[in-house]
This record gives sequence, structure tokens and C-alpha cells, in this order.
Amino acid sequence: MTTFIDAEDQPDTVPGEPTGHRVSAFADRHIGADAPQVATMLRTVGLNSLDELEQAVIPPVIRDSGVPALPEPVSEAEALAELRALAGRNTVRVPMIGLGYYGTHTPGVILRNVLENPSWYTAYTPYQPEISQGRLEALLAFQTVVSDLTGLDTASASLLDESTAAAEAMTLMRRASKLPVGAAFVVDTDVLPQTLAVIQTRAEPLGIPVVVADLTNAPAAALDAIEEGVFGVLAQYPGTSGKVTDLRPLIEAAHERKALVTVAADLLALTLLRSPGEDGADVAVGNTQRFGVPLGFGGPHAGYMSVRKGLERSLPGRLVGVSKDADGNPAYRLALQTREQHIRREKATSNICTAQVLLAVMAAMYAVYHGPQGLRRIAERTASSAATLAAGLRAEGVKVVHENFFDTVLAQVPGKAEAVVDQARELGVLLRRVDGDHVGISCDETTTEAHLALVLQAFGASPAPQVSEPAIPAALVRTSEYLTNPLFNTHHSETSMLRFLKRLADEDYALDRGMIPLGSCTMKLNATTEMEAITWPEFGGLHPFAPSADTEGIRALVKDLETWLAELTGYAAVSLQPNAGSQGELAGLLAIRAYHRSNGSLERNVCLIPSSAHGTNAASAVMAGMKVVVVACDENGNVDLDDLSAKISQHGEKLAAIMVTYPSTHGVFEEGIGQICAEVHAAGGQVYVDGANLNALVGLSRPGQFGADVSHLNLHKTFCIPHGGGGPGVGPVAVRSHLAPFLPNHPLDALAGPATGIGPVSGAPYGSAGILPISWAYVRMMGLEGLTRATRTAILTANYVAARLRQHYPVLYSGRDALVAHECILDLRPLTKATGVTVDDVAKRLVDYGFHAPTMSFPVAGTLMVEPTESEDLAELDRFCDAMIAIRAEIDQVAAGAWPADDNPLVNAPHTAQSLTGEWAHPYSREAAVYPPGVTPRFKYWPPVRRIDGAFGDRNLVCSCPAPEAFED
Amino acid sequence: MTTFIDAEDQPDTVPGEPTGHRVSAFADRHIGADAPQVATMLRTVGLNSLDELEQAVIPPVIRDSGVPALPEPVSEAEALAELRALAGRNTVRVPMIGLGYYGTHTPGVILRNVLENPSWYTAYTPYQPEISQGRLEALLAFQTVVSDLTGLDTASASLLDESTAAAEAMTLMRRASKLPVGAAFVVDTDVLPQTLAVIQTRAEPLGIPVVVADLTNAPAAALDAIEEGVFGVLAQYPGTSGKVTDLRPLIEAAHERKALVTVAADLLALTLLRSPGEDGADVAVGNTQRFGVPLGFGGPHAGYMSVRKGLERSLPGRLVGVSKDADGNPAYRLALQTREQHIRREKATSNICTAQVLLAVMAAMYAVYHGPQGLRRIAERTASSAATLAAGLRAEGVKVVHENFFDTVLAQVPGKAEAVVDQARELGVLLRRVDGDHVGISCDETTTEAHLALVLQAFGASPAPQVSEPAIPAALVRTSEYLTNPLFNTHHSETSMLRFLKRLADEDYALDRGMIPLGSCTMKLNATTEMEAITWPEFGGLHPFAPSADTEGIRALVKDLETWLAELTGYAAVSLQPNAGSQGELAGLLAIRAYHRSNGSLERNVCLIPSSAHGTNAASAVMAGMKVVVVACDENGNVDLDDLSAKISQHGEKLAAIMVTYPSTHGVFEEGIGQICAEVHAAGGQVYVDGANLNALVGLSRPGQFGADVSHLNLHKTFCIPHGGGGPGVGPVAVRSHLAPFLPNHPLDALAGPATGIGPVSGAPYGSAGILPISWAYVRMMGLEGLTRATRTAILTANYVAARLRQHYPVLYSGRDALVAHECILDLRPLTKATGVTVDDVAKRLVDYGFHAPTMSFPVAGTLMVEPTESEDLAELDRFCDAMIAIRAEIDQVAAGAWPADDNPLVNAPHTAQSLTGEWAHPYSREAAVYPPGVTPRFKYWPPVRRIDGAFGDRNLVCSCPAPEAFED
Repeated sequence: MTTFIDAEDQPDTVPGEPTGHRVSAFADRHIGADAPQVATMLRTVGLNSLDELEQAVIPPVIRDSGVPALPEPVSEAEALAELRALAGRNTVRVPMIGLGYYGTHTPGVILRNVLENPSWYTAYTPYQPEISQGRLEALLAFQTVVSDLTGLDTASASLLDESTAAAEAMTLMRRASKLPVGAAFVVDTDVLPQTLAVIQTRAEPLGIPVVVADLTNAPAAALDAIEEGVFGVLAQYPGTSGKVTDLRPLIEAAHERKALVTVAADLLALTLLRSPGEDGADVAVGNTQRFGVPLGFGGPHAGYMSVRKGLERSLPGRLVGVSKDADGNPAYRLALQTREQHIRREKATSNICTAQVLLAVMAAMYAVYHGPQGLRRIAERTASSAATLAAGLRAEGVKVVHENFFDTVLAQVPGKAEAVVDQARELGVLLRRVDGDHVGISCDETTTEAHLALVLQAFGASPAPQVSEPAIPAALVRTSEYLTNPLFNTHHSETSMLRFLKRLADEDYALDRGMIPLGSCTMKLNATTEMEAITWPEFGGLHPFAPSADTEGIRALVKDLETWLAELTGYAAVSLQPNAGSQGELAGLLAIRAYHRSNGSLERNVCLIPSSAHGTNAASAVMAGMKVVVVACDENGNVDLDDLSAKISQHGEKLAAIMVTYPSTHGVFEEGIGQICAEVHAAGGQVYVDGANLNALVGLSRPGQFGADVSHLNLHKTFCIPHGGGGPGVGPVAVRSHLAPFLPNHPLDALAGPATGIGPVSGAPYGSAGILPISWAYVRMMGLEGLTRATRTAILTANYVAARLRQHYPVLYSGRDALVAHECILDLRPLTKATGVTVDDVAKRLVDYGFHAPTMSFPVAGTLMVEPTESEDLAELDRFCDAMIAIRAEIDQVAAGAWPADDNPLVNAPHTAQSLTGEWAHPYSREAAVYPPGVTPRFKYWPPVRRIDGAFGDRNLVCSCPAPEAFED
Repeated sequence: MTTFIDAEDQPDTVPGEPTGHRVSAFADRHIGADAPQVATMLRTVGLNSLDELEQAVIPPVIRDSGVPALPEPVSEAEALAELRALAGRNTVRVPMIGLGYYGTHTPGVILRNVLENPSWYTAYTPYQPEISQGRLEALLAFQTVVSDLTGLDTASASLLDESTAAAEAMTLMRRASKLPVGAAFVVDTDVLPQTLAVIQTRAEPLGIPVVVADLTNAPAAALDAIEEGVFGVLAQYPGTSGKVTDLRPLIEAAHERKALVTVAADLLALTLLRSPGEDGADVAVGNTQRFGVPLGFGGPHAGYMSVRKGLERSLPGRLVGVSKDADGNPAYRLALQTREQHIRREKATSNICTAQVLLAVMAAMYAVYHGPQGLRRIAERTASSAATLAAGLRAEGVKVVHENFFDTVLAQVPGKAEAVVDQARELGVLLRRVDGDHVGISCDETTTEAHLALVLQAFGASPAPQVSEPAIPAALVRTSEYLTNPLFNTHHSETSMLRFLKRLADEDYALDRGMIPLGSCTMKLNATTEMEAITWPEFGGLHPFAPSADTEGIRALVKDLETWLAELTGYAAVSLQPNAGSQGELAGLLAIRAYHRSNGSLERNVCLIPSSAHGTNAASAVMAGMKVVVVACDENGNVDLDDLSAKISQHGEKLAAIMVTYPSTHGVFEEGIGQICAEVHAAGGQVYVDGANLNALVGLSRPGQFGADVSHLNLHKTFCIPHGGGGPGVGPVAVRSHLAPFLPNHPLDALAGPATGIGPVSGAPYGSAGILPISWAYVRMMGLEGLTRATRTAILTANYVAARLRQHYPVLYSGRDALVAHECILDLRPLTKATGVTVDDVAKRLVDYGFHAPTMSFPVAGTLMVEPTESEDLAELDRFCDAMIAIRAEIDQVAAGAWPADDNPLVNAPHTAQSLTGEWAHPYSREAAVYPPGVTPRFKYWPPVRRIDGAFGDRNLVCSCPAPEAFED
């Protein structure tokens, strides 16, 4: 049988590994170094075996005697066969449920050349913009799509989903409002139910009153009825019920009362309907899923947010803008990064960190491929389907509740809704049972005449003649233009689109070119076999609110993965709902909060956070209604235990939790972790261990067993979900049993969490369910031994890099025997002081050497943090070390005065090919500039631009596609 | 429902197209130019409509009143749904039939990054080696794999399949032999039955006696028994029956009798068995399918051939070798091209033209990924499975016929073979019914213990304990090393493999970068939707000799496609068996030959071929046993009708056929075609119209209706099968009804052709069946109107290019109103004469401008032939025209003496990035060298090497991977 996988499916033994189990052949593909390479690295580190390394590095205090119960590993072929069996337990019916999720056709050229292309999906977040121009351009297109269609000035580069975007809009408006604390947030009754629920989850810890009211009939009166005053309003457009009404009266009434207005709008509808921006809205949010992104049982999809002028500096998440490079050429980069939580920490106003880049790129490319006319045609066809359906229902005497609608028809069938929905399901179509008397039917671009006939049949009606006129009131018809930029009016043939996608991918550096040694981000292999199932229709085609009987396969997969992750982390329960690490943090902290409150400890709201923590930790604590108290670190980078004791005493009964990362963000297995847990517990607090560095623990140690109460994991770090150029992420939260009742749940899916839960933190019951097959396959193919070997190898590679580079750059922080964990920090500060050469210069110079830079200035300013992961083989590790050593020699040239501080290969890096053509007045040669040691000319990766001036772009903020003339200068 | 295709599935109307039909929305994606662009081009050409263009270009004599009966087109979504339904009618069981086709695991990283990657599959044949270094390196790896494993000195870059490779070996040995005409070719009884049949098909017209004899027991006696003498011998290793015997006695006996020996060998077996080369064989042939290439119902797979020293210049097909570029750097290119049929024409000794590049790349990468140890492990596991099976059968008292075998067990079950095979099929396993008493069972890398248990169950036996020792005699165990080059010992992690594949693809220029305006090769869009189904397991997993009940879906697809192609060409019958255009030509000529012979006209053997014809035409005629007589062309490039009449009279009753290309290779719709057909028919000859230029006819004219008797089509030209970097091709043959009884058939598949047929021309009954879904989808989605619009647009784009370039380069040949067909010839000869700038210089300079060169010096030396196809939009056509005009200005600079003839941007082209770094002593700037007008620096495609010295490489022939040190100088 021809199957498309790796052949080596037989048991094999690995030197130095415990035997008696089936050993993963896949692990040999996943792990870069083979046995001789491991031996070489061990020699360099000065150890004899991986066992010895493990003994030396892992403090006894974090070991436990239990063994995670994972199934024996299977081969790639077997894993695919099991995934096909799971897929076969899903039934994909025509999804006309609506509720924010719609059928869509992913154009093949986008499916294959973006979603299935490692050049896109293995890319990192574009923090090094010089080597990320392709995806930055694609994200700028996304922003332009959102901004144009919503009619608002500035859109960000995507949010996690529509519901969390609405919650972000709430807090944005809260900050922008002048109304006093205690003013209410008002949500229209026709807002998506999951959005309301997420808002309630998020508002509660912040003390924001949420009022649900019918705002469409008499908005002024409705707003006046709210005694505490209203700082912000959220309306859905079109409404969840399908209804299309004029937004202007609401927006005017709100503005008159000093309330801001967010409209959750459907972008496809906006090709036909007057935009929120034209109607005066302050903010728009929504989902771009129906722009060609598979349903995937609820995600991942790119949520969006756009704002009117004046609010752009308050936008949460990432924003792409146009600036210029050192040669004055236009260049893209992330704008206004000062707004971001990882910089603002406890002063953050959002904890959003990850975006949904890969999906935002898909949605943007869908708009590029169809263009404004194509999008309008799709919208017209969708609206025409709905109008046809309404006519057919009316002809049969079924009442259609709303006169005006875009894609969704609300039918009134007193007492018969259940029967109609059941009948439709029998016929292969999923409808929405609104209540006992109402059925909702949502059309989309995939709706055919045959589908409409089946729906009508379910109502006992006959097929209806086509109605071409959308049921949109003339007054609301859109007259303004959109997507007029040439980008959206050029690539309409597949050939042209293919080349555009290739050109964008060509500009970027992703894991398919070389290592991305990003500390704390664990840029490991995303194996093809892991990726394959996510584009199978049986997973991609599932609506998140499809009946559980239709979704047995994906639910079984979710269950497996929850169980395995709980085993690996030593916790009692896991929720996969959080669709980013930040959301996992929030969920974990909300669980702690709810736990304390359930014990009557309403006052416990202090969260201790070490100074070395990820900024997101503090931001999440703030979002969870906690007060952040920073605990100092000692000179070794460890939590200062004295300061900890002092802070614990100081806050006494107010102590809610401590959040620590383990191993620490300094790349060290802190020996004090036992004491930390004990002291916090003794004081009545909970211990949150951030799972960002779990790649150093899997198989060796389990936070749920060494003292932590809760952790979030980053499946996009440790468990092989690709970074996608900056998202999607998946951030499950794992808890000990006493916190399990406080995991997230979902109002539309009783199986998605405990009834006592904190409510949803994501719009979809299982978050980014569509990509969970990736982590499932990883664990299934690695098995416990494979995972353990990966962890040990990851620790070895970091120590190897540290050992090779230590004499050239001081390695900051280390644990016992001068060993680090799975990453190491190279201290550039002395060199910077001596020569003026900065971490930035080294990072950009690494581009000339053919590398993506390590993490810059985190956790310590002026340093580089390197995490090689287990997937890099010795040749690539050596190529990196050699490059860093060669760069050190270049720095020495500057130190020696051979090159001036303001004209040397470092400060001028990166060098483009174009920079070779003009005059060359530098004190080093062209060859030295672009072909430093180790670079083979014929395989050179050329950055498309030179160093980018971020500040210039922030001063001259341009966040949508510039006219082509901008590139002519 | 989320499906992965283009959304625009609704009827639409196209200006200027007949209405009343459903019009293809896919056609708008396939065809590059939209209506305004078409209007612009028409204006430039001086016409008002596509109708007018058609009227002006198409001679009335080739029109017919019929309309091809094609189904109405469907959308991309619908086509995928129909393909899924067809796939659902195939049943993939475990294929243990053997007969040269085996189960294999395609590693995911190769599947996704080669077979599903447009950078590989849309590439052209590497005739421009400077922009083909990636695939040339991969092909060199293929040659190294074949050469190392077979133990022979030189391997070519793949042949069409094992059976045709064996036939090529026969003719190679015939040429190399000193024995007189009339000597026999002896085929061992244990050779694959389809190979014997192909040999018989091919030997008959050449007058080579083929004798089948048992050569293994007493080879000397067997050879001596053949009275006519023996020039060559073919043995299978291991035999079809599974038997492994020592080849040396046979080879020695043959050599003593001055016969050459070809061994058809299984490469996987050769990892364990002494190689044919070590045993003294002259030639080895075989299939590389089991190196990770899907079965695909028989193809495409890469056949191979390797030869001992001294025969390398006789190798048919393409050979990759190492040479150096203008800067002295090592560089790959096709070696010894003088051997190729397209150059040797009627002196050709083979008609092989296409190779199986894409599949050869996959097989080579499989070897790179597994390495020698990995391959050996796979072979050992396979052999162990077979040994285990034999033990289990023997334990149950079933006789195992051969003691020594590699992967195939021959079981003797008197009278029960049918029952065993049926029982196994019930259990989900396909076995080979050898005869009523024998069953063959072939193991492979996908064989599991469970499979073996099922096989034993079918025999009524119990599961057997594993036997780890292969059933290979100690004397035949391989002791020599193989694949010692570092290339095969480096990329064993998926990360490393991914980067290697990316690096190779990055070096190359394919359709995903820009247009490839190759005259006569029709490099059009290969749409993703067309490509998707070929990697579905339901198509990819089918064994070619699976029962017809298991293969209903693919058979229905074949039937559909045959019917549609017959409709479009106006013929009565089509065979899809020929797996390359050359094989289609051969099949068509053999049909003509058989037809004449069936009429008693044994003497009709003259084939008239115009001087402008593709060289392959003449080569195929020679292979079909015909005598080639060249007919002159007039100064307009048309067949000289007077000379035609003269040649017809001269050869009288000997006239077999005329082969013409229509429209002609000069890109002209010859008006004389009616007269040509009439005169040839009147003289008793048959008319063969080469379908290479069918892209100018589809929907407008049908060869089968305007006078031709037979054509071959190139599905890889007109019908969207991608070129794959130089193969696979698919070359169906289409005939009028009187020739239908003489189409190919197949000894192992009674449904694959008429019982009266000429025998097989390919090893598999339906040739490259695995890729037929591509052309099926194309026709299904385009419909007649879409196809017609494509043709008209293709003619328009050629005329647009001609109109824009005519004032800069004379356009050679045109038809009525100075219009060309779908391609145009730019005459460089006057400029070359005046300036010394050659077509080569212009072709290489086009690389600097970001283009693949047009066809060079065919059909007229010193010219460029441009075929833009319908898929290029106006922007790309203009980019090309602008580049050609700019190049003309550069030539003028040379003419004006501004630049010396031996130092100018043309003669120095292409320029690498590396060439910018050294001293720059040219009279033009670095910028002018690499960023000529129209090139955007940040999007520049950089060739990895400078101009390659082909002659140097031919003088210093290196055709396997050089040691890495070769790249250090």
C-alpha cells in the first residue's frame, strides 16, 4: 500500500535509552542529532552520557516517582492511519448554523501555497522585520481589507477570534472613555451568545458591569435606562438573528451619552452594507474565517479589530506599518510596539501576545485573489441564497421573522424547531435551533440550489425560484468603494496569485532555511505528518456547534490530547480551549481567583511575579483582576527567596498566587522551586508555573507533581504547532484537581468544561481545535521515550552552544556545574560598552550569515537568548556557533579600531544584494559584507531590505497598503 | 461546508463568447488575461475581437461543422467532489502482487515539498542549466543511486519505466554488438511479462528476433541452442518468480559468446545482493518506484538505466553531468546532448525524449533521506517479511518453490491458486495468481505482521514467528559499499531534509517565478485543483494489476478522458497508455504499420517528414521500422507542396505515412494541409498529425476531421500535466476508426486495448495513470467554451508578443494577415551577424531580467521561439516584451561599439550575485548587470551559477555526485 509517510516503523533501540518499550522511529526524524552527534556534543560539554547530563541539570526537588502513562509510540504511517480513523468518526454536513462560522471555499492556490507550505507556517513572529517582509506585506493587506471594509482608519494585524476581540474592544473603550469606574458595558441582545459569554468572563474580574439590552428599537431609551451610565456599547452587524438594521440611531444615541460604540461586523456583509465606520462607530471587531479559512471545529481563524482615528495607539495586539530601511527604501515592520503587553508588563492594558498570522494571511490572500468585484459577487450570491430561501419559506406559509437580512433567515415554526432541525440533519444540513419556536439558517458562498431545496424540504416546503435581490434595505446599501489598492486588483489568475505568494515567501526566512534559535519560543520541527490531517475536510469542515454525534472523532482526539498532556505535566485536568498562551494564563489565573472566592477568600488578589518573568504574566494577572507585586531576582537570575518571604509576609491574606516560569526565563532550573511552592502554599497562595519552558521538562519532571497548582502550556512551543509567522497559538491550561471545577466551559457546548467553570475564554468551545491533530500526532509518534529523548537533547544542544560560545561571549546565569537548561543567554553588554556594537547589530549581522537572530534583550536587556531545540543537528549548531564566533572576531576588529564604530559590517548589517551595486566606500569589502565565513554564495539568503528605521514609521504611521508610487522613490 | 477550492462556481458570461452554455468560472482563473486585457492585446494586434482573430488565423480547410460533445463545465469545488466520488469507487487493498510494483512509504517531507510543491512540479526540462541547478543536483543524486546500487559506471537521469528501459537496452546492445543483423535477443523466462511484451512490440518493427529461454540453469547450453546467434541477453534480478540466482554463470557464458547482458534489477534488493556490475553485466535497467513513489495504478515512476564504462555515450535519454561555469565554479548541466534524439533526428538510435524527472527526484530524495543504512534496514525488513512468510507456509505444508528469494515467495498450491487469491482479497490483500497452481506474494517496506497473518490465513495457515534472516545465499550477499557520498549521509532528520529540498528548489526557476515562454512546450498553469487528487491514497495506492473490480473509479476516469480527448480531436478512439509523447508517436506509427500490413501492404515503410519537424518524429519513425524521407519547406516555413508531390511519386507504393505538426513547428496554420492530406491519402499513405501544437487547435479545429488518421497528444503540453522539471509526460495516441484495432493493448489487462492491438508500448496498462486526474480535472472544469477561449487567448498572446517585438526582432514566418498561431519565432540571425551576440547570449541575458529563455534554435537555428500560452496575463507578457526590447537596446550598444563584443552584459550573462563582489572591470556597471530595466531589486531571482561550459563537462565526464571537495576550489 502506498502511504505517504516515513518508512521506519519498526522498533529500534537507542544507545543510552531505557529499553523494554517500543522506541519511536519518528523521534529519529524529529531529533536533529543522531547518536554520534550526541556523543560529540557531550564531549564538548564535558559529560559522558545524557543520563549524566540529566542528573547534573535536573534538581532532585522537581523529580517525582511517577511515570506519565502514554501509549506506546506508533510510526508515521500508523499515526496517519489512526488519524484517518478519527476523521472517519466525524460527519461533515452542510453547516448552515451560522453563529459567526460559515462555509467557505479555500482557493486551492492559497491552501497549497500558504496553509500547506512550510515557508509560511514555520516562520516566526516578524520581530526581525528585515527577514519577514513577505508576511508583513501580507498582514498589511489584511489590515487594509479590514480597514477598507469596516470603514475605519486603522486595523491591527489580527486578534485571536471575534469574541476575544469584542472583549478587547470592551477594555479599549473602557480606557478611552471618560466615564467613571462603575459605568456599564452594554451588549445588544442580538450579539453572538459566545461573545457575550466571553465578555462576561473577562468583565467580571475587572469589575465592569455588563448589561444586555435591546438596543435596536429605541436605543436612546435603552441607554438611558441604565443607571450606572454607559461607557461602551457592542452591537452585532448583521445581528445573530440575521436582522439588518440601521446602526446610526444607536451610534448617535451612544455618542450623545459619551459612550463609545463597537460593532461586531461580518466583513462579507460589509461588501454590500454601509460600513460601521461610515455610520460613526469607534471600533469594529469580527471574524475573517469566511474569507477562505476552514471551519476547523471553531478555529484557528483570524479575529480582527479596527478603530477610528485617535484610538490607534490603544489597539491591542500587533500592528504592521510602513517605514523605510537604511537605504531609504520602503519597508514593513511592526509599528508602535511600545503598546504591546510584553513591554508594558504590569501596566499593560491587554494580555494579547500571539496573533493569528497564518490565518490572517489566508484571509488577506482570499481578498487579493477575489478582489473587490469577486468579494461582492460572493456576497451577492450568498444574500441571494438567503432571499431565495426566505421566499420559499414564505410561499409555504412559514413566517420569516426579519424583513431585512444578509445571509441568515430566522424562521418561526411554533413548537417545531427541534423537528425541523432534526429533519434537516437527516437530509445532510445543519441548522440552528434558536429556541423551541425558531430556526436559523445561514447561507454562505458554498450554498447551492440543492442545499436550499434540502432546507425547504426540512420545513416541508418546495424548492423556490431564485430571488436575486438581497433582502437589504436600500438605505443601508454600501456606496463607498473598498479594496481599490492595485494589490486587490491584480492577482486574479491562479498563475499570478501563485507567483505573488511565492514572491512573498521568498522574501522571508523560516525554519525551512535554517535555525531560528529563539529563546523561550522553541522553534522546533513541525513535521509534515503532523501537519497533514489539519487540511483534511473531515477536520477542516466541522462547524464548532455541529452536534456532538457528528464530531465524535475530533472530540476523541481532544480527549486523548487532554489526557496525554495531563499525564506529561502531572496535573489532574486540562482544558484545550485557550487559543493562545496568554489566554491559558488568563484562564489559569481566573481559576485561581474563582477557587479563592469559592473558599470565601474574596480579598486574595495579589499576584507575585519575579522580575525575570515574561511581560505577559503580569498583563494576564492584571486582566484577571489581580494586583501585580514584583519579586526580585538574585545575581544568579533566581528568585530572591528573601524578597519572596518578605513579599509574602507583606501581603499576607491578600496573597492569591505566584507566577513563575520553570525552568526560569534565565534558562536555569532553579533549586529554590520547592521552597517557593512551599512558602506560597503555606501562606494560602496558589502556584502558577508558566509552561513556556516546558520543552526542558517533558518526560523529566512534572509541574503538577513538584508543587504547582496550575500551568498553561504552549502547544506552539513544546508540542510542534508551527508558529505560522506569528500565530496561531494554542495555550491549554492544566490544573490540579482542586482547580478543575474552575476550568473554562462554554454556553453552547455542555461537554466543553465543568458546569462550575469560569465561562469561556475563547469563542469556540475547544479553541483552535482544527490544529490539535498536530500535537496529537507529535505525542502519538514520539511516545514517552521519544519525548524524553527530545528533552534531554534540547538541554544538550543548549549546553553545547553555551560551551562553544562561552569563551567568546559570557554566558549569563547557569545552574549546577555551570550547566544551563534548554536555552542560554549570551551577554553582549561588556562588548557593547567597549565597542558600541549592540545586540541589534549582532542580530542583524546574523542575517548576513544566514540566520534568524536569537531573542533580543529578553529577559535581560543587552543580551541574546539562544534556544537551539532538539531538532537542530550538529552541523547547523556548529554553523551557528561558527557564525557567532566570526561575529565576535568582527567586533574585535571594531574594538581594535580597524573599523570605525559607525562604519563596520555590524552596524551596517544586514546587507542587501542591491547594496553591492553602488559606490562602495566602506572599510571592509563587498565580499566580507555579504559572504562572511560559512556562507556559500550560491545558497545565500538575501534579505530584501536593509536595517529598518522603526521610529520613522511610528512617527509617520501608515498601516494599510501604500499606493505603488510609494515604492518608486 | 469548507472545501478547498475556488469560490466562483456560478455561471457567468464572457464578452464575445457564445452564450447559452454554462461558462467556466475556472477558466477565468486558468486564463491569465481578463476582458480588458484581451481588448488591449486585440488593439495592439489590430483586431477588434477574438472572433475576428479566429477568422483571420484559422484556415477554412481545417474547420468542421461538428461540435465536440463535452459535458458542461463544473466549478473547482464540484470537480473535486466528482473526483472524490471516483476515488470512492477504488478499493485500495494491500498490494502484494509484485510484478515490478511494490508498496512504499513516501516520506511526508518529500511528498509535501517535492510532489506537492509547484517549485518542483512546474519546472521545465533543465535545458537552461544555469537556472536548473537544484533539479540537476537532484538528478545527479538519482544517477549516483542507480550507479552505486547497480555497480555500473554511468547511469542516466531516468527513463520512462522499467519495460521501456529494457527495450532501450535491447537496442543499445544491438548497436554496441558486433554481431550481424539477424542475431537474436534472448529474454530469460523469469523476466517481467510486461517487459517481455514491450520488448516484443519494439523488436518487431526493427526486425530483431526475440527468443524466450530459461537462462538460469544451463546458460551456455541455452545460448548455444539459439541458431541465429545472440547479441544480447536480458535477465531479471531477482526473477519475477522471486528466485535469486547467481548471475555470473549467465554473464560469463554470454560474454564468451560476444553477447551483451542487461540485468533488470530491483534497487532495493541490490542493497543486500551483489550488484550486476560486480557480476560483469553491461547494462542494468529497472524501476525506482519502490523508493517512495506512489503506485498510481502503474505510473508515473522513474525507470532507470546504467551502463559499464564505454557504453555511456550510447545511453538513451538524458544524462546529467558536472562542468564549470564562467567563473570556474562547479555547475551541473545535461551532458553529451549530442546523443539525444532531438538532435540526431533520423539518425537517432532511440526516440526517448521526456524523462521522469519529478519521480526520479523523489526516488533520489528517498535515498538521501534514508541513507545507505536506512535503505539496507528497509531491505532487510522486507526480506525478513518474505522469509517469515515462507516459514509460515512451509510449516503448514505449503511448498515454497524457490529456496532463495528477496521479497517474493512463490507458493505451490495445486489447483487452488484461484481460491487462495480470492480468499486473500476478501481479507484485504492482493496476491498474484501465477497460474492455477502457483501464487506469488511480494513483501515490501509497508508489510506488517498483520499483513503476513492475513496472507497465511488465506492459505489456511497460522501466523508464523518472525524469521530475521533473509533467504539470500551467502555467496550472493553484497559486500561492496554504496551511497558513501556525504549527500546520502547527512540529511536524515526531517529538518535537515526540508532545508535541503528548499535550498534545491530555491536555485531553480519554475512557473511559480515567472513565465517560461517555451515554443512548442506550452508551459501553462498547472492548477492546484488539478493537482490535488493525484496524491490521494485512493489513486496513489492502486497497483496496476489490481482486479478491475477494485479499480472502477480510475477506470471510469480513464474512460471519460479518452472520450473527451476523442471528441476534442475528432478521432474515433484514444489510448492513454503511451507515457510520453515519443511513445505516443511510436504507438501511432506502429498502428499505421500494422494497418498497412493487415492490408497486405508489407512494403509501405516510407515516412515523409518535413524538414521543420521535431527531431523526435524522425526518431520515432526509425523506431517503428520506417525509412525517413525529408520533405522540404518553402521560404515561408510551410511544407513545399511541389517537393511533397515529388517525394510521393518517387516512393509510390512504399509510402507509409507523412508526419506533420499542425499548426507547424514554425507557428503557422499551413493552408496546404488539405492538399497534403489529400495527396498522401491518394497515394495510399496515412497522415500523422503531431499534436504538439494542439494548444492552438482545441475547440477550433479537429485533426481527426480535417484529414489526419492519427495523432498523439501531449497531455503535459495542452492538458495541464506539469512538466515536473522534465517529466512525467503523457502522450495518448488518437486514431480514426480504421486504425482503432491497432492501438496498444496489454498482456495483463484485457480491458486496456483491442485484442488485435500492437502490444504494449508501456509497462503499465494505462501508462502514467496516476496523473490522469490532472487532465481530467482540466477538461471537466473548462468545458468546451473554456477550452476554446483558452485556445483563442493563446493565439492572441502569441500575436501580441509578435506585434510588440516585430520592430525589434524580425518575426519569422506567419500566416494570413501576418498573423502567427500560438507561438512566434524571433529571428536573431541578422543581429548575430552584425554584432556577434547570439541566441545563447540573449537567452542567458533573459535570466538577468528574471525570465526563462524561450526555445533556442528550434525549429530554426539562430532564432528564439516564444509560446506565451493563455495563462500569462498582460502584465507578464509586457514584462517579457519590455525585457526583449531592452535587450535589443543592449545589442545596439554592442553594435554601436559602446561595449566590446567580448565584454558586454549579454556575452557575460547571466550574472550572479557573487560576481558583484570582486573587481569590476566591465564597461557596464554592476547595476546594469543585475538590475536591468524592469527588475525590482528586492524581488530579484539570482541564478546560482554563471554561464556553464558544456563542452568542458563533456570532455571530463562526471555523472555522479562529486565529493564535497570538488566545490571547495
